[in-house]
Amino acid sequence: MKPLSRYLPILDWGRAYDRGALTNDLVAALIVTIMLIPQSLAYAMLAGLPPEAGIYASIAPILLYAVFGSSRALAVGPVAVVSLMTAAALGQAVAETGADYAAAALTLAALSGGMLLAFGLFRLGFIANFLSHPVIAGFITASGVLIAASQLKHILGVKASGGTLPEMLAGLFAALPETNPITLAIGAGATAFLFWVRKGLKPLLVRLGLRPRLADLVAKAGPVAAVAATTLLVAGLGLEAQGVAVVGAVPQGLPPLAMPDLSLVLVTALLAPAALISLIGFVESVSVAQTLAAKKRQRIDPDQELIGLGAANLGAAFTGGYPVTGGFARSVVNYDAGAETPAAGAFTAVGLAVAAVALTPLIFHLPTATLAATIIVAVLSLVDFSILRRSWTYSKADFAAVSATILLTLGFGVEAGVSAGVAFSVALHLLKTSRPHVAEVGLVPGTQHFRNILRHKVETDPAILTLRVDESLFFANARFLEDMVQDRVAEGCAVRHVVLMCSAVNEIDFSALESLEAINLRLKDIGVGLHLSEVKGPVMDRLKRSHFLEALNGRVFLSQYDAWIALCGGAPARAA
Amino acid sequence: MKPLSRYLPILDWGRAYDRGALTNDLVAALIVTIMLIPQSLAYAMLAGLPPEAGIYASIAPILLYAVFGSSRALAVGPVAVVSLMTAAALGQAVAETGADYAAAALTLAALSGGMLLAFGLFRLGFIANFLSHPVIAGFITASGVLIAASQLKHILGVKASGGTLPEMLAGLFAALPETNPITLAIGAGATAFLFWVRKGLKPLLVRLGLRPRLADLVAKAGPVAAVAATTLLVAGLGLEAQGVAVVGAVPQGLPPLAMPDLSLVLVTALLAPAALISLIGFVESVSVAQTLAAKKRQRIDPDQELIGLGAANLGAAFTGGYPVTGGFARSVVNYDAGAETPAAGAFTAVGLAVAAVALTPLIFHLPTATLAATIIVAVLSLVDFSILRRSWTYSKADFAAVSATILLTLGFGVEAGVSAGVAFSVALHLLKTSRPHVAEVGLVPGTQHFRNILRHKVETDPAILTLRVDESLFFANARFLEDMVQDRVAEGCAVRHVVLMCSAVNEIDFSALESLEAINLRLKDIGVGLHLSEVKGPVMDRLKRSHFLEALNGRVFLSQYDAWIALCGGAPARAA
Repeated sequence: MKPLSRYLPILDWGRAYDRGALTNDLVAALIVTIMLIPQSLAYAMLAGLPPEAGIYASIAPILLYAVFGSSRALAVGPVAVVSLMTAAALGQAVAETGADYAAAALTLAALSGGMLLAFGLFRLGFIANFLSHPVIAGFITASGVLIAASQLKHILGVKASGGTLPEMLAGLFAALPETNPITLAIGAGATAFLFWVRKGLKPLLVRLGLRPRLADLVAKAGPVAAVAATTLLVAGLGLEAQGVAVVGAVPQGLPPLAMPDLSLVLVTALLAPAALISLIGFVESVSVAQTLAAKKRQRIDPDQELIGLGAANLGAAFTGGYPVTGGFARSVVNYDAGAETPAAGAFTAVGLAVAAVALTPLIFHLPTATLAATIIVAVLSLVDFSILRRSWTYSKADFAAVSATILLTLGFGVEAGVSAGVAFSVALHLLKTSRPHVAEVGLVPGTQHFRNILRHKVETDPAILTLRVDESLFFANARFLEDMVQDRVAEGCAVRHVVLMCSAVNEIDFSALESLEAINLRLKDIGVGLHLSEVKGPVMDRLKRSHFLEALNGRVFLSQYDAWIALCGGAPARAA
Repeated sequence: MKPLSRYLPILDWGRAYDRGALTNDLVAALIVTIMLIPQSLAYAMLAGLPPEAGIYASIAPILLYAVFGSSRALAVGPVAVVSLMTAAALGQAVAETGADYAAAALTLAALSGGMLLAFGLFRLGFIANFLSHPVIAGFITASGVLIAASQLKHILGVKASGGTLPEMLAGLFAALPETNPITLAIGAGATAFLFWVRKGLKPLLVRLGLRPRLADLVAKAGPVAAVAATTLLVAGLGLEAQGVAVVGAVPQGLPPLAMPDLSLVLVTALLAPAALISLIGFVESVSVAQTLAAKKRQRIDPDQELIGLGAANLGAAFTGGYPVTGGFARSVVNYDAGAETPAAGAFTAVGLAVAAVALTPLIFHLPTATLAATIIVAVLSLVDFSILRRSWTYSKADFAAVSATILLTLGFGVEAGVSAGVAFSVALHLLKTSRPHVAEVGLVPGTQHFRNILRHKVETDPAILTLRVDESLFFANARFLEDMVQDRVAEGCAVRHVVLMCSAVNEIDFSALESLEAINLRLKDIGVGLHLSEVKGPVMDRLKRSHFLEALNGRVFLSQYDAWIALCGGAPARAA
C-alpha cells in the first residue's frame, strides 16, 4: 500500500467510484438520515446535552471518518454507551471544576480524539486487547440496564438523578408520587409501539408481500413514526400545559464552529474519563467494523480505525458535538441499506445538515418521553445476561471477571465497572500463570512423544525426573518454580537428572533466569544434573546472552527424546 | 505436619532444644544485641520517630516472630527501607489528618500486621511474586540512595526535608551556609571510621591472627565503638553548647503497652502505604530467610512467614514500635554468630529490654550525626546499580522496568517507585504476550519432531500449514490470533489444512475460545480444515465443556506427528 493512501483510505476507494456505487450510497444515506434524526436527539438527551448536540455530533464526524476511516460501512456518531459514559464524566467534572456542561463535552471530545489519533499514529491499537471479550460483554449488558433505568424518569415525567442503579431506583421510587399521567401514557405507549415495530411489524410486512430486507428497513423507521405521532399529539392537544415535557426550541442552523476549552483544570479532570471513553468507543467500533468487513471479505486495520475515530472526535469537538464512535445499529442499517463506500456517510452528513437547518422547528413539541422510549427499546437489545452462563460453564475465572464488571458497573457506575473489569482480567490471568500446571512426563511407548505420567501409559526411569512446565517462566511464577523443583527432587531419592522440558516455555525473564540459576546451584550441591530440552529459538537466543548456560550442570537437548536416549544410556527401565 | 505445629513452628524446634543449642543461641543473642542498639536508634531516627521506638520495635516483635515464624535465623526489627517507607507514609498521613506522628506509627504497624496475618491465613503469599526480581533490586538500590541522602542533613547539622532526591538535594543546598562545623567533623569522622571498619578492620584483624569469622563479628561492633567514642566526646567537651544535635532524654523502662488509634480517617489514609510496606517487608524478609535456610537445607514456608511477620508487626503496634520486618544485616549477624533456633531472638529481646531499662541515660549525649553515619554506611551496601547493566544485556523489558522503578523512586518517592515497578512489570509482560512468537513448523527428517521452518531443515507439505503459537491463548492475544491465521492462510493459496500445534498453549480463555470459533467459521467458509495437535490435558478438559469441538471443521490429534501422517496421506512432499 502506498504511504499516503495508508493514512487516507479515501484515495483507495475514491479512485474506483462510479455511478452504481453513487446510487447505492445515496439510497443508504437517505434511509440512515431518517433513522438518525430521532436517535441523535435521544442520545444527546442521554448524555445530558441539548438535542442539537446529537445532530451536530453526526455531521462533521461522519465526514471526517469517511476520509480517514478504514471501514466501508461503519456509521460514526453518538451511541448509547458512550453517551452514558459522557454523562457520567461530565457530571463529575462539572461538579469539581464548575465548568460549563456543554463546553466540557467539547473538551471531552477533543481529549478523546487526540488520544485516539495519537494511539493510531503510534500503532498502539493492540492496547484494546487488554479488554477481554467477556468483560466487554458484561460491561455492555450492564450499561444497557443502566441506560434503560436512566430513561424511566422521562417516561414517568419526574425529576431524578444518579449514576448508579441503586441511586436511580431510589430516586425514581421517591419521585413516584409526582408521576405525570399524560407523560406516562405517551412514554409507555411509544415504548409499546416501538417494541411491536421491532418484533411484530417486520413479519407483518413480509406477510403483506414486502421483501424481507425492505420490511426490515421500514421497521427501522418506526422511531420516526413515533416521533411524528407524539409530536402532533402534544402540539394538537396543547399537552405541554398539562406538564408534558417537550424538547422545546432548538437552534436552527449549521453546526457552530467552536474552540473547546483546554484549560488545565478541566483537562486534568477529564483525562481519565476520556481514556476510558476512547477505549470503549474504539473496542465497540472495531468489533462492528470487523463484523461487517468479514461479510464482504474486506480487512479492517485497527490502527487506521483509531486515526479515523480520532479525526471524527476532533471534528465533534470543534462543531458543538460530543464524543462519538462507530455505532452498531446505525452501521448495520447503513450496510443493509446497501452502502458501498464511506461516501454514503458523507451524504448522510449532508442530510443531517439539511435537517439541522430546516427541520428543527418541527420538533419543538416532541415529548422527551418519546425520545426516552426510543432509547429504552434500542438499548435493551444490548442486554444479554447469557454471558454469565456461558462463561460459568467454560471458565470460573472469566465468570468472575464478568460478574465483577456487571456488579460494579451497576453499583458504582460505568467508569468503576470498566476499570474493574480490566484490572480483574489482568489479575486473574497473572494469578493463573503464577501457579502453572506442571506435568511429570514419560515416553509414550513406540513413539518419540512424551506425555503426562498421570494421564497416559508411558515409560519412565527413576533416575530421570522430567518436568514439563506448562507456562512461560517469568516473575509471577519464578519462586513457584524454585519451590516446585526442590519439592519434587526431595520426593524422589533416586533422581540423578532433572530435565526441564521447555516446549511450553515461551519466555524466561530476568527473574526466572535468577531462579534457574538458584535451582542449578542447589541441584549441583547435591550431585543432581539439571538439563533443558526443547528450548525454543527465541528463548535460547536470550539464554545465550547470559552466563546461565556456562554455569549449567547439565546439557541442553534439541528434543526430549534426545535427552531420554542420552541420559538413560539407551536402556530405559520400564515403569507405569 | 500436624495442624497445630503448622501454625506454631515453635512446637517443632522447641521439642528438640538442648544445652548445645542454648549455648549457641545465647552467644549469638549477645552479639546481635550489641549490634542492634545503635542500629535500632538510627532507624527510628530515619523513620522520624524518637529513638526509643527503635528499641521497642525490636523487643515484642522478635519474641512473637520466635513463636510464629518459620525461619530459624531471621532477626526481625526495624530495617532501613521499611523505616524510610514509614517516614514517607507518616509524613503524608499526618499532614492530611492532623494525627499524632508516633501514634500514627502504631496504626501503620497494626494495619501492616493485620494484612500480613490475613494474607498468611488465606495462604496468599504468592502475591509477592508480582514484584519481579529486577524491580525489587532497583527499588532497594534507589531506596539506599534516598536513605543516604536523607541522612546528610544530620551530618551537616542543618534542617532540611523532602521525600524525593531532588527535594532533598535542593533542601541541603539551600541549608549549606548554616552547616555546623563541629557536627560535620563528628559526622564525617564517624562515617570515615565506619567505612574503614567495614573495609579495612577485618583484614587487619585477620592478619593479627583472629579467625576470619570472629574478625567479622568484631568488625560488626564498629558502630558501638563509634557511638561510645562520639558520645564521650560530646559529653566531655560540652559540644551541645556549640550546636551539636544529640539524642537527648530517652524514657527509661520497658516498652509501654499502648492501643493503636484505629479511627476511620487515619486507617483510610494509611491503608495503601501499609499494603506497600507489607509487600516490601515481606519480600525482603522472605528472600533473606530463604538465603539463610538454603545454606542449612531448611525449608521456608512463605505463608507461615506472613503469619510470623504479621504477629511481629501487631506486637510492634501494641508496644510503642513501628513497622518491622526481617532485616538482612541483623539476620546475617545472627546466623554467623551461630544462632540455631528462634530462641536466639528471644534472648536478644531480653538483652534489648535490659538496655531499654538500664542504658538509655547513657545515650543522652549521643550525637545524631553518629547515628546518621551508621545509617549511611549500612545502606550503601544496598546500592547496586549493576542490575541496570545485567538486565540490559538479558532483556530490554526487564531493563525498562528497573529503570522506571529507580527513576520514579528517586524522583517521586518510595510509594510511587514501587507501585510503578509493579505496574510496569505487569504491563510489559502483557505486552509481550499480546504479540506472541508464532512459528511455522515442519518435520525434522528421520524423527517425529517438528521445528521452526526458518531455523531448522525440515519437511513441509504445501497443503498443510502448521503453526505453533508460542503462548497461551487469552484475551490479550485473541485478536492477534484471528488476524495472524487469516493473514497466513491468505498467503498460501494451496493450503487445505491449518494445524494449530498447541504444545505451548497452556490456557485457552473465553476470549480466545470465541476467536477460535471465529477462525473455524471463516476457514470452513473457504473450505479449509482447522485441526489442533498436542493439546494439553487441562486445556482439552476445558474445550470439552464448550461447543467448540462439535463445531470444529477438522480433528484434534494427540501428537503433531499423528496429524502429519493423517493429513499428508502418508506421502509428504519434500521442501526446504
